[in-house]
Amino acid sequence: MAERRAIQDDYPEDVAHCYGCGCLNEHGLHIRSFQEGDETVAVLTPRPYHIAIPGYVYGGLIASLIDCHCVGAAAAARHRADGLDPAVDPMPRFVTASLQVDFRKPTPLGVPLEVRARIEEVGRRKVAVAATLSAEGEVCATGRVVAVPMPEGMGSRPSS
Amino acid sequence: MAERRAIQDDYPEDVAHCYGCGCLNEHGLHIRSFQEGDETVAVLTPRPYHIAIPGYVYGGLIASLIDCHCVGAAAAARHRADGLDPAVDPMPRFVTASLQVDFRKPTPLGVPLEVRARIEEVGRRKVAVAATLSAEGEVCATGRVVAVPMPEGMGSRPSS
Repeated sequence: MAERRAIQDDYPEDVAHCYGCGCLNEHGLHIRSFQEGDETVAVLTPRPYHIAIPGYVYGGLIASLIDCHCVGAAAAARHRADGLDPAVDPMPRFVTASLQVDFRKPTPLGVPLEVRARIEEVGRRKVAVAATLSAEGEVCATGRVVAVPMPEGMGSRPSS
Repeated sequence: MAERRAIQDDYPEDVAHCYGCGCLNEHGLHIRSFQEGDETVAVLTPRPYHIAIPGYVYGGLIASLIDCHCVGAAAAARHRADGLDPAVDPMPRFVTASLQVDFRKPTPLGVPLEVRARIEEVGRRKVAVAATLSAEGEVCATGRVVAVPMPEGMGSRPSS
């Protein structure tokens, strides 16, 4: 069976370097998002040093997970709304305009974290996405991202 | 001259492992926050692989910076409001209840990022902090954190 393709696997190669989700970033987290019905799902087990207080995941990782995953969900939603085919048509690259995370309970370290995103609104200029982050079946954080298409010219700045 | 102490240098050792700001996390970002008048300031130069789109900083790092820095500012504000002395009295450890980040313009990679936090409200059960993140003198992101005292018992979970 062919390996399942994540949304991020379809990002154009020149913009696939994100530390959170880019398949071309060798140091990165490699967040991978998959469509499951009306939801988009990603699972990631944090590394042992992604600590807040010992035993718990640090908030910046939770924010990163929600951010990158929702941006992927937004790109795929825009792609679908345009009637395009992931196997043929290039995936648009979205970036984050705003990110909100509510930390509802401490997130345990050492277990897989599951992020589920639902599209709230698909506009031409913005896509709004809501997410939950769960560990061991319990929702530990919720979030909301407003994603916008990558500004023209942003992909052409040389890397420092 | 003695090295200047950051707020995070005064966190109790058993809760100083945060990947974002803990002085005891050898893999971490080591965000360090200093009081300057009414503001709290941290400066960090992202690593070359903290990329979003090549040439720009990824949003998860910006969220982490704002998050950890504001939590530090909150702890120091609560400490001051209690009339305590950082040289003698242990710094309380706060955690994030909510995080909001607005990405106002792409943040260039390869230059120091400066985060400035201002306290909006110091309560017994929560401290609200607003922040700006600037690169080369331009505000690239703004944020707001509501921080709360670390729940009792949270520090006692063994690390996975």
